[in-house]
Amino acid sequence: MDVVEVTPTAEQYAYTFGGVAPLRRVTPGTALRVWSDDAFGGVLRTTSDLSSEKVDLRFVNPQTGPFHVEGAEPGDTLALHFVAMEPARDWGASAAIPFFGGLTSTAVTATLQEALPDTTWIYELDRAANTVTFAARHTDLEIALPVEPMLGTVGVAPMGGEVRSSLVPERFGGNMDTPQMRPGTTCYLGVNVEGALFSVGDGHYRQGEGEACGTAVEGAMTTTLIVELIKGGALGAAPAWPRLEDDAHWMTVGSSRPLEDAWRIASTELVRWFRDLYGLHPMDAYQLLSQTVRAPIANVVDANYSSVVKAPKALLPRASAYGGLHDDLRRRAATLR
Amino acid sequence: MDVVEVTPTAEQYAYTFGGVAPLRRVTPGTALRVWSDDAFGGVLRTTSDLSSEKVDLRFVNPQTGPFHVEGAEPGDTLALHFVAMEPARDWGASAAIPFFGGLTSTAVTATLQEALPDTTWIYELDRAANTVTFAARHTDLEIALPVEPMLGTVGVAPMGGEVRSSLVPERFGGNMDTPQMRPGTTCYLGVNVEGALFSVGDGHYRQGEGEACGTAVEGAMTTTLIVELIKGGALGAAPAWPRLEDDAHWMTVGSSRPLEDAWRIASTELVRWFRDLYGLHPMDAYQLLSQTVRAPIANVVDANYSSVVKAPKALLPRASAYGGLHDDLRRRAATLR
Amino acid sequence: MDVVEVTPTAEQYAYTFGGVAPLRRVTPGTALRVWSDDAFGGVLRTTSDLSSEKVDLRFVNPQTGPFHVEGAEPGDTLALHFVAMEPARDWGASAAIPFFGGLTSTAVTATLQEALPDTTWIYELDRAANTVTFAARHTDLEIALPVEPMLGTVGVAPMGGEVRSSLVPERFGGNMDTPQMRPGTTCYLGVNVEGALFSVGDGHYRQGEGEACGTAVEGAMTTTLIVELIKGGALGAAPAWPRLEDDAHWMTVGSSRPLEDAWRIASTELVRWFRDLYGLHPMDAYQLLSQTVRAPIANVVDANYSSVVKAPKALLPRASAYGGLHDDLRRRAATLR
Amino acid sequence: MDVVEVTPTAEQYAYTFGGVAPLRRVTPGTALRVWSDDAFGGVLRTTSDLSSEKVDLRFVNPQTGPFHVEGAEPGDTLALHFVAMEPARDWGASAAIPFFGGLTSTAVTATLQEALPDTTWIYELDRAANTVTFAARHTDLEIALPVEPMLGTVGVAPMGGEVRSSLVPERFGGNMDTPQMRPGTTCYLGVNVEGALFSVGDGHYRQGEGEACGTAVEGAMTTTLIVELIKGGALGAAPAWPRLEDDAHWMTVGSSRPLEDAWRIASTELVRWFRDLYGLHPMDAYQLLSQTVRAPIANVVDANYSSVVKAPKALLPRASAYGGLHDDLRRRAATLR
Repeated sequence: MDVVEVTPTAEQYAYTFGGVAPLRRVTPGTALRVWSDDAFGGVLRTTSDLSSEKVDLRFVNPQTGPFHVEGAEPGDTLALHFVAMEPARDWGASAAIPFFGGLTSTAVTATLQEALPDTTWIYELDRAANTVTFAARHTDLEIALPVEPMLGTVGVAPMGGEVRSSLVPERFGGNMDTPQMRPGTTCYLGVNVEGALFSVGDGHYRQGEGEACGTAVEGAMTTTLIVELIKGGALGAAPAWPRLEDDAHWMTVGSSRPLEDAWRIASTELVRWFRDLYGLHPMDAYQLLSQTVRAPIANVVDANYSSVVKAPKALLPRASAYGGLHDDLRRRAATLR
Repeated sequence: MDVVEVTPTAEQYAYTFGGVAPLRRVTPGTALRVWSDDAFGGVLRTTSDLSSEKVDLRFVNPQTGPFHVEGAEPGDTLALHFVAMEPARDWGASAAIPFFGGLTSTAVTATLQEALPDTTWIYELDRAANTVTFAARHTDLEIALPVEPMLGTVGVAPMGGEVRSSLVPERFGGNMDTPQMRPGTTCYLGVNVEGALFSVGDGHYRQGEGEACGTAVEGAMTTTLIVELIKGGALGAAPAWPRLEDDAHWMTVGSSRPLEDAWRIASTELVRWFRDLYGLHPMDAYQLLSQTVRAPIANVVDANYSSVVKAPKALLPRASAYGGLHDDLRRRAATLR
Repeated sequence: MDVVEVTPTAEQYAYTFGGVAPLRRVTPGTALRVWSDDAFGGVLRTTSDLSSEKVDLRFVNPQTGPFHVEGAEPGDTLALHFVAMEPARDWGASAAIPFFGGLTSTAVTATLQEALPDTTWIYELDRAANTVTFAARHTDLEIALPVEPMLGTVGVAPMGGEVRSSLVPERFGGNMDTPQMRPGTTCYLGVNVEGALFSVGDGHYRQGEGEACGTAVEGAMTTTLIVELIKGGALGAAPAWPRLEDDAHWMTVGSSRPLEDAWRIASTELVRWFRDLYGLHPMDAYQLLSQTVRAPIANVVDANYSSVVKAPKALLPRASAYGGLHDDLRRRAATLR
Repeated sequence: MDVVEVTPTAEQYAYTFGGVAPLRRVTPGTALRVWSDDAFGGVLRTTSDLSSEKVDLRFVNPQTGPFHVEGAEPGDTLALHFVAMEPARDWGASAAIPFFGGLTSTAVTATLQEALPDTTWIYELDRAANTVTFAARHTDLEIALPVEPMLGTVGVAPMGGEVRSSLVPERFGGNMDTPQMRPGTTCYLGVNVEGALFSVGDGHYRQGEGEACGTAVEGAMTTTLIVELIKGGALGAAPAWPRLEDDAHWMTVGSSRPLEDAWRIASTELVRWFRDLYGLHPMDAYQLLSQTVRAPIANVVDANYSSVVKAPKALLPRASAYGGLHDDLRRRAATLR
């Protein structure tokens, strides 16, 4: 299986979902190896590089894409299977951006208080050990942490002609910032426009759940993924909100405010999926997920907050979604590495 | 080490935190084996038992307690180490109570819609297999699920003379409904009144994170725990909000509405704990937890919502809280079983 | 009509709804003239008196009461008609209390930021002009503002044996902090315990809607009110949440978090009231209030937020609630002044 | 003063802010008389016309515009002064759209409950009496209500290249759905793109605060307005969020979720405006608005909720904004009618 390499120039970076001409056209079944810049466009390189001086929040999370998927139409479901993610630089950066993040007031959770001190942390990557090192800015503590690469941002063009900043997670995916978006995961997204126009970006060398300070260990990333398309109606309705599948879990992602609404979205979407997977009545699906799921918060810092609900396959009867596509993609992925 | 057995009569059940005379006085160091009734007071026994007919939401989660801890004063920290939890009946019950739960409007998230159908599920316990069985009400599906016992409700008397329903999670603990409250966990709670006046109840044979439908697999429980007291000032300030520790995690629990506030509480409390444990500046603690924690939702259904933030000890330097009390309690617990 | 004068000693102040022995027993129909201290217990007297030094947030809003209403039982409705409110001191005080208020992070909307500067404002009362004067602390601006007296706190004992701080607004009324609680208003509250056990306090010489900084022009107040009791079932069900009536409006008050839930509560309670008043189907009541009501925010700063929804009587057909009690109380009030 | 008449064809309707080519170019100082269709595009004409059959929520609130304002650049402030609004049809329509509105679960406040019944109300306009008549669907009640025309939707193109549905209120204005957007009001909006690209629509013959059911008395409208431009820096910074001024009030509008965040936005924007108008320190501005403002909820039903904070000029020292532009526009408007 061939892999198409894509590395955009800085001029080709996209900062929105929708509203951008395709970077490239791909056919379903294509494997891509795409390079994406970090959330800051690579401008935070030392702890002296302050986000207030170097980062414009209207232009962060540069996307690689969008990709026009041949044959994709509204009502179809796009499947993106992540095969591998490799740090593309030897360091990652994180920052407490003034009035951005979860433990500070912001432009919308607005208070009259002063901002937290604008602070940058640089994480050196040790490729041999596969770690990034947290170095405290105020004391001498250093801690090597395992690299656990993921993508903060995976999305398609929104419905209704909207164009949304790459800071936004919503129905179309986007900046969900969940550690579940990692190698081995298949992401299902409803197609809203012809060609789907998906893009990826915002690589994280690792991230805690919630992404408390607003930024992960942000790093340029080389991502290998396989693109697939499920034609509408063939295998059930397109998901209303992003669905994820890995070998161990059925997962849904809701994004809204307040955070309980994000959770409500993810939970009702999982009720719908349980109906498809197990033929369950909604009340039985509601009961079953109440006793079985994990509910990790994804982020509490973006334009919408994101909540993941994940059901362990091991607890549930065997079932397959979209004609067993995930298992098939896993097999195909194995031939790539 | 002796174990004091406590089984209340139905007349002795407490339905509030605070406002109830002590059931018993205990000295720090005491091991207790307490029986607690299920959240419904045992009245849902078949699927024909409807919550709207049999359950009064003002009197659920019957507590066993309160226990007056000798010598406990405001400013101290109560430590409760859970040694074992054993199902005390051969079945558990769950219910979709009208206008109660996460995927329905409620008395406060009030809409004009009809309630979801009042539905009860009974889970038969298989002690040999250590499972409870989900039986769908609308189809034939049955699924045996592992028993993973936990307590929904662990709390002390509130500050300021308040008395709160046993449905409420707050600063004083209470109805946090987190699966983390299980055997092997130590729960630290700030003491607000003389004697602390703690109680426990609301046993769950298992529960998913979020407790979506509002009720877990509710079951009477026999809980073995060890009571300890940390005198104020001796080992750092009392926690402002509940802290949990097990062999693998430092955890905090925030409870409020909206859900992001519960998460903010838990996260800032963990920043404070990281400062105590590692001597970190708050900004470094903020950064470190941003990249390392798990953030499972506890419940989105109670009078307040609860959010857990948990830091894996394995990722962090070795440290001990409260003079290494948790490890000491683990050792003592081992002599009980 | 006689008026019973009640002035508590400081030792008699109540700081909770519920949990306090009655200060006095009154029969329905009684007129009371009650003195209440200000929210700070009178300790902020100059701009040098800082809330962080002088105010304990666990003991603010001292209540005058509770009053045991003879014959009141759960299921009944208590009606309190406010006849007059007169400033009982020559100054009012307001403060930006650290981590308390609407434009700051708080103990529950928790961030890592510094508190706003602890600041006190003293408002001199000009009885002749009936004004209080805002004096800027950082410039020379002074502005005389009309006195518009109101009570922040009016409530009964909660249901289910709960005891709540006088900082809390809830189903039982309490610290709703709405300017609608002024002379000429009748407040209807469902009775939860024998005797109702109502209390009043937290006088405001004036307050903007939202009570943004967390405190109004707080002042000791002499309040004249008439107590009435509507026996359960006689004239419709007791209100689930506080209802207010003045000559011009039907009003409901919801208190919860997030603020939209407070508004949902108030709106659904008004739908129920419209059904009683006009025999409307809930969908028609929903439509009618959608096009006619005012929706002033009461407070966004207390333990719960409060939202008022008010329907102008002038837009609606003539109707009367509780047998025309409000008009009757207005007539009786006229004989008092 | 001449008035430019603009009536779009249905093909010219815009359904987004941003992303649409200008309908027309206008110079600052121009008076426009624009016709706008109702929120439903005129398709709900009888009570048998159901929104679920006739309305596509991706294409509601058709906008008239956008208008390219000559010389407008990012950093400038657009001022739109509303001179007159006249119902352009003899009836208005309102609907309880399934899963849309404030007292129902929605796509984001998602529950498993059934939708409320899809219901349409038609309001006949009596031009002589200047009333629209509510006619109950389930009983015989009819109530004539005064026409109080307003525009739900006034906005410019968003920043950062975003394109937003005309259902969205945000920093750029948009679907704020506040009754304050009426004749006599001047609306100030920060300019984000060259030409500003403003549009108007969503006329309401009247609306209660909160717009509880999600729709007002929706009607086609003829709006007369004057367009002005304040060049950046000349008279203070552009507003971060919409500001409104009428003869009696300084007003700000915040839009976000949860509703308290909308209120926080509006309140902090008013603190900034008070600083400009009165030279006040932020803490004094915070205090002053706490005691003086009204805080009517605008809507709790749109993609974001909107909150208005309004300070009565009569309570405050005389001041003028943007060089007294509002008073000047009032004078110019008088020459038009």
